[in-house]
Amino acid sequence: MTELARIGVTGLAVMGRNLARNLARHGHPVAVHNRSYGRTKELVEEFGHEGTFLPAETAEQFVASLERPRRLVIMVKAGGPTDAVIDEFAPLLEPGDMIVDGGNAHFADTRRREQALRERGLHFVGTGISGGEEGALHGPSIMPGGSAESYEALGPLLEDISAKVDGTPCCTHVGPDGAGHFVKMVHNGIEYADMQLIAEAYDLLRRGAGRQPAEIADIFRGWNEGRLGSYLIEITSEVLAHTDAATGKPFVDVVLDQAEQKGTGRWTVQIALDLGVPVSGIAEAVFARSLSGDADLRSAARGLPGPVPTGASDVLVDDVEQALYASKIVAYAQGFNQIQAGSAEYNWNIDAGAMATIWRGGCIIRAKFLDRIKAAYDGDPGLPSLLVDDHFQEAVRGAQDAWRRVVATATTMGIPVPGFSSALAYYDGLRAERLPAALVQGQRDFFGAHTYRRVDREGSFHVLWGGDRGEVTA
Amino acid sequence: MTELARIGVTGLAVMGRNLARNLARHGHPVAVHNRSYGRTKELVEEFGHEGTFLPAETAEQFVASLERPRRLVIMVKAGGPTDAVIDEFAPLLEPGDMIVDGGNAHFADTRRREQALRERGLHFVGTGISGGEEGALHGPSIMPGGSAESYEALGPLLEDISAKVDGTPCCTHVGPDGAGHFVKMVHNGIEYADMQLIAEAYDLLRRGAGRQPAEIADIFRGWNEGRLGSYLIEITSEVLAHTDAATGKPFVDVVLDQAEQKGTGRWTVQIALDLGVPVSGIAEAVFARSLSGDADLRSAARGLPGPVPTGASDVLVDDVEQALYASKIVAYAQGFNQIQAGSAEYNWNIDAGAMATIWRGGCIIRAKFLDRIKAAYDGDPGLPSLLVDDHFQEAVRGAQDAWRRVVATATTMGIPVPGFSSALAYYDGLRAERLPAALVQGQRDFFGAHTYRRVDREGSFHVLWGGDRGEVTA
Repeated sequence: MTELARIGVTGLAVMGRNLARNLARHGHPVAVHNRSYGRTKELVEEFGHEGTFLPAETAEQFVASLERPRRLVIMVKAGGPTDAVIDEFAPLLEPGDMIVDGGNAHFADTRRREQALRERGLHFVGTGISGGEEGALHGPSIMPGGSAESYEALGPLLEDISAKVDGTPCCTHVGPDGAGHFVKMVHNGIEYADMQLIAEAYDLLRRGAGRQPAEIADIFRGWNEGRLGSYLIEITSEVLAHTDAATGKPFVDVVLDQAEQKGTGRWTVQIALDLGVPVSGIAEAVFARSLSGDADLRSAARGLPGPVPTGASDVLVDDVEQALYASKIVAYAQGFNQIQAGSAEYNWNIDAGAMATIWRGGCIIRAKFLDRIKAAYDGDPGLPSLLVDDHFQEAVRGAQDAWRRVVATATTMGIPVPGFSSALAYYDGLRAERLPAALVQGQRDFFGAHTYRRVDREGSFHVLWGGDRGEVTA
Repeated sequence: MTELARIGVTGLAVMGRNLARNLARHGHPVAVHNRSYGRTKELVEEFGHEGTFLPAETAEQFVASLERPRRLVIMVKAGGPTDAVIDEFAPLLEPGDMIVDGGNAHFADTRRREQALRERGLHFVGTGISGGEEGALHGPSIMPGGSAESYEALGPLLEDISAKVDGTPCCTHVGPDGAGHFVKMVHNGIEYADMQLIAEAYDLLRRGAGRQPAEIADIFRGWNEGRLGSYLIEITSEVLAHTDAATGKPFVDVVLDQAEQKGTGRWTVQIALDLGVPVSGIAEAVFARSLSGDADLRSAARGLPGPVPTGASDVLVDDVEQALYASKIVAYAQGFNQIQAGSAEYNWNIDAGAMATIWRGGCIIRAKFLDRIKAAYDGDPGLPSLLVDDHFQEAVRGAQDAWRRVVATATTMGIPVPGFSSALAYYDGLRAERLPAALVQGQRDFFGAHTYRRVDREGSFHVLWGGDRGEVTA
């Protein structure tokens, strides 16, 4: 009798290939399939010694080589290609089998696909996988959605190949249907915000404190030992320490300063707007990338008047660390609020603390800091904001003077800090006793009779602005 | 022979009713129809003396009472109700007839409807109408999309009932299919940003300069005489001057400080994200409203640590005026860039200067300032940003020291100014010689092999970060 594979991977570009290798290396016989067989053969030839690979030339062979219930992982491009592969394989499967989409699908697509396949008796598991090529091979952070039943059959395998932190797998059942891809989307949105904040910190150290890239690399290396310790801080020091061989200049100075993006940051903001969750940190990060990439506009705007440079190095390194940490707390607070709002909207019952737990390893935003977030949600699973958690509240209390100095100084010097300043504005808005939103409601009532509520009694009211300016009940 | 109506309006809620009255008052016989006939009768009974109304009880009577080609304006709720009314009337119409949707439709819906009706030989005109109830009656700003042919038959009527500024109608043909509703959407987005900036100015004068609402009303009244002169500034002074009769307190102090929104601001940001246009001013305004409205979160966050109040009145009134004007320029620059991007994406060929022209009267954002914007686009129809126009460049040059002082002071005092600070960050980002986006590209290349471009030669490159750190061509 031929050995059957415990799981199969179709789509053997670098992410799919590395995921298959990761499975094989963990002792799980893995069926491998690709639209063109050449890539399948290559994988087996090159990495066959790492474990048991069952190469399949056709879709039928691939499906036949899987033990039941079948676990079929598709690692292809999001959108049309994913639908095409689902349409190809679904007819070959039997009730109870499961299709796992490990791509960066939009969670609304995942919800649609899950429903369609559920009606055919199949499980569909949309799963976020973070960590890039290296993560896929050595242990990513895995965020699977789908039915609890599918997680029973699939979870142990995924947990096995995921990153581990203190022995805990960076994988857990996120929630039904689109929950996994939703959480992965927010993860990426937070990643955008985090990268933007780091970029602003660098810019402040460079232009505001007059430090050179190699010195700034050292500063980041030092920060990485403290509360900011994280993969992104670590690689920032690597990038800043790197010298361009061709020119002998700091690498960061030869890279074109036009950031690109693939779309999950944009999705995060668009969905947050639908959910009514302010994610200003992510939005400012997405906009900053767009702005940087608009070469024509920037070229036209070069030379617009700025403040007269004083030549002073006004920004303090420690202040920047404080500002970065406080701004980072805000970015994560906003992202976690979006997860809670999505969970409430779609009845996913997501455990926010568990998300912090599975992000501690494998993924791009892995950080010491996430232990603190986990602790905050362990203390209060319904925490309305990370900012009101005792630990983070104290952290911001200690950091805020520096945070305000940094934003004020950058503002004066003409160094753009949209991430730092929007985070601070959010914080000050959140804690405000009264907001000028009352004036906005007054304006809306004036021009559109949109009515307002009062601070002193229930009901909706309208002023007869065009008449005697009496108040009427709306 | 019975007189025929030149145009018909179905949907006689306040906007539809006032639009019909406006048409009748201008001497255009207007057919009127409503799902329930009672409202139609009421309109004729109450306002029949204002002009020629032809009340219709049924859809068939309504259509029969229109001269050809028929001009049928629907004034119902956006979304499903609009589709239902179109489905009801389209079968009764003949080739060459036109359906005009004067609601706040999403431009993507308008594109879909226009195409479907075009295939049936009918014209579909999605038109923005701004100015609220009063505008609809006395002269709104009208932004019709659709075919040039439909504008020939419809334009003179719409121009006739629109607001006029210096004799010029606040109505012009915006462009094909969804162009009119797109421009109306951006108009509303700009309105959000403008209102947020005014709210921040008020908050600064109140909490930063220690002024009382009545004094601030006077300040706004003064500003209204200058370059900030606009409907929104004018009504702000009215709202701030108003005293609540029940309590004797300033009206703004008895209004609940939770701003509401209806969705067009959110749409604007979502579409801007799709188009890759940074509209941070609109986004911050939408987020500020959401934040203000989250009563539970704000209640939990009340008392979070802020700066120690010094009791000083550090903010200067004139500085706030300068900051408001500069921030407003940025908000409009972003909005107009979104119009240009939408126009390019959908081949609408929108004349940006003409949009400034038709916004000068009738609509919520009408302002003196729009003459300057018109002049800027008259001078260069392809202007990459209002900020690079000579006039606005000089205005920002003069305002920026004050602008920076205001943002820095608010930051130090703990007064949230997300609109002012994001506008300033955008300006400083736009004019920056180098942005830290280069670091972001380096990070992306490190963790995801996303490649980067160089400042000194063409091509895409990648550093072998996990290897010898040599550079390879991607």
